[in-house]
Parts: sequence; C-alpha cells; structure tokens
Amino acid sequence: MPYIPLEEHLPGITGLLEYRKDTAAPIRELTQILLRGPSTLTEGERELIATIVSHRNECKFCTTAHTAAVDILLGEENTSAKVKQDIMTAPVSDKMKALLTIAAQVQQSGKSVTTESVQKAKDAGATDLEIHDTVLIAALFCLYNRYVDGLSTVTPTDPAYYKGLGERLKNHGYNRLPQGYDHLKK
Amino acid sequence: MPYIPLEEHLPGITGLLEYRKDTAAPIRELTQILLRGPSTLTEGERELIATIVSHRNECKFCTTAHTAAVDILLGEENTSAKVKQDIMTAPVSDKMKALLTIAAQVQQSGKSVTTESVQKAKDAGATDLEIHDTVLIAALFCLYNRYVDGLSTVTPTDPAYYKGLGERLKNHGYNRLPQGYDHLKK
Repeated sequence: MPYIPLEEHLPGITGLLEYRKDTAAPIRELTQILLRGPSTLTEGERELIATIVSHRNECKFCTTAHTAAVDILLGEENTSAKVKQDIMTAPVSDKMKALLTIAAQVQQSGKSVTTESVQKAKDAGATDLEIHDTVLIAALFCLYNRYVDGLSTVTPTDPAYYKGLGERLKNHGYNRLPQGYDHLKK
Repeated sequence: MPYIPLEEHLPGITGLLEYRKDTAAPIRELTQILLRGPSTLTEGERELIATIVSHRNECKFCTTAHTAAVDILLGEENTSAKVKQDIMTAPVSDKMKALLTIAAQVQQSGKSVTTESVQKAKDAGATDLEIHDTVLIAALFCLYNRYVDGLSTVTPTDPAYYKGLGERLKNHGYNRLPQGYDHLKK
C-alpha cells in the first residue's frame, strides 16, 4: 500500500511520475539523456548500470524492470543474471567490469569510489565522460530506488508486467508517452 | 583531485554542472521546482531536508553549502546545527521533526521508511504532497552527494566560499546564472 494516494493501475515509479508531473518532467529528461542519448556506451551497457545499482539497493521494481530492458536490448538473459551474481566473472568487457564496479561503489556512497577503481576503468579504456556518466547514472538510480521504495509503491509480481515495461523502455525510452499510448502506461 | 578534468575554479557540484551542461539542465530544474517552487514548506525547511541528508551522507561540500543556505534563510545558525546533532530535540515543529526523520530514513534506503514514521508525519499535519516532496528531496540529495563525492570533486575549506554560495542559493536559486554573473560562479 503506497504511503500517498497513487493511481492503482500505475505501480512502482509509473504512479509517482503521474502524481507530480512537474517534477517528473526533468527526471524523465535526465534519464532519457543519460540512458538513451548519444554515448560510447550502448543502451544495454547503460541499463546494466541501472540494474546493478537497483539490485544492490534491493529495489525489486526497478531491478526487475531494468533487467527486462537489458535482456530485451541484448537478446539474452545470461548477462544481466551474471552481473547481478558477480561483476568480475560476468560475460562483459573489462571496461564494463570496471565501470560496473564504480557503479556498485556509488551505490554504497560517493566516498566509496576509489582512485584505484577509477584508474582500472581508465586502464581498460574508459573515457572521462564514460566514468562521469557511470557515476551519474548510478547516483540517479539511487534517487529512483529511494523514490520508489521510500513511498512504498506497489511491486507487481507478474513477470509479464515487466516484460511489457522493458519493451516500452526499449521502444519509447524514458519520455512521457503521448496521448493515445495510454494502453502502454501499465 | 577530481577523477575527471573539471574547471579548477569550480569546486564541488559547480564544476560538474559545467562539465556536462545537458544533464545539468534537468538536475537544476528538478532542484529549483522542489526547493524553490510553490510549496507549503518554507525554503528554509526544504533546505534543512537537503542539509540533513547531505550531513548523514557525509558529503562535506553539500552539507556546508546547504547549511549556509539554511542559516541565511532563517537568519540564525542554531537550527541547522541542532538538526544535524539530533532531529528530535532540534528547535523545529513536530511536523518538521517527522519529515526530517523520514528524510534521514530515505538517506539510508527507500525501504527504511516506515508506516509509523509516515503516520507520525500525517498526525503532525503533514500533507501527502509534503511527504512526497520530502522523500523526493531526500532522494535527490542522495544523487547529489554521490555525484559530488563519487567524482572526488574539490571541497573548499574557506567558510567565506560557502557563505557566498549560500547567498547565491538564496538570491538566485538553482537555475543557471545568466551571462554576466560569472563572478558569482565561484
């Protein structure tokens, strides 16, 4: 039961983004730029950063939604599962291992990021902008996870819900759906 | 020494907001709406929420900057100091004690917010929107604190710097300063 009155058919973040649309607009815009804007990181890689942070924050709604997005973007379910189990043995590049490690440090605290972990990312070929974006995406999902769980929003249990949401995130990104797409606002 | 190249004369968040202006714009907008937009919470009360979260995240730059903003807005330095020491004995209303408690729970994790703490806020007269905004402001500062410390930005030690920044936050809010105000972009 959410702590504030949210539309019943809109679980997780979706009800919050409708509850206060003026704050939702810049949150959507920031997410769209970071996760879908031009980048040397693929959309799948950026969704993996969102996934590992949500997973470590134990936010079930966000973890399941972004896992679904990763799986649809990559066309397989192995990578997201392995990253959540253990970053260092997951089937991703050395650069992504280093960036996901930084993201996991950000999840704990900004101060947890070390000179060594940043150097490791640079040695593996990460650019300054990729390191910047990794930290900001991880910080943004620390916001999302707290927003979603801090107001006790509803977490659907039906896997089909998240598959639909993952497809929406792949096809429409984070912008507000235009009128006429209400059937997608699950 | 920051982990990425930032302008040397722009410490803390200020250099990050210049490093990537396209992501800075929605971050500034969200903050301006939440901390300076129409609200039944005063600007000082909302800055206190930013302060307690930054303090608990041990982000020295943000804590000192928002403490300065609170002190200038309230015209005294006692309230911010007492809130950082102990919310329950600080000289604020029962409603603010309850909202600051929720903010401190959000700092730990979204899941740390309890039905009891929300009920206490409602019993003390907090509206649904005030509870929503408290959670979102607290979550936003969990983003800021991680962004600032996760990239190891510079933390000035001169109190005069924060006094200037606090005055800027009072007089200009969180919007980007127009051209010609460069002397304020300390």
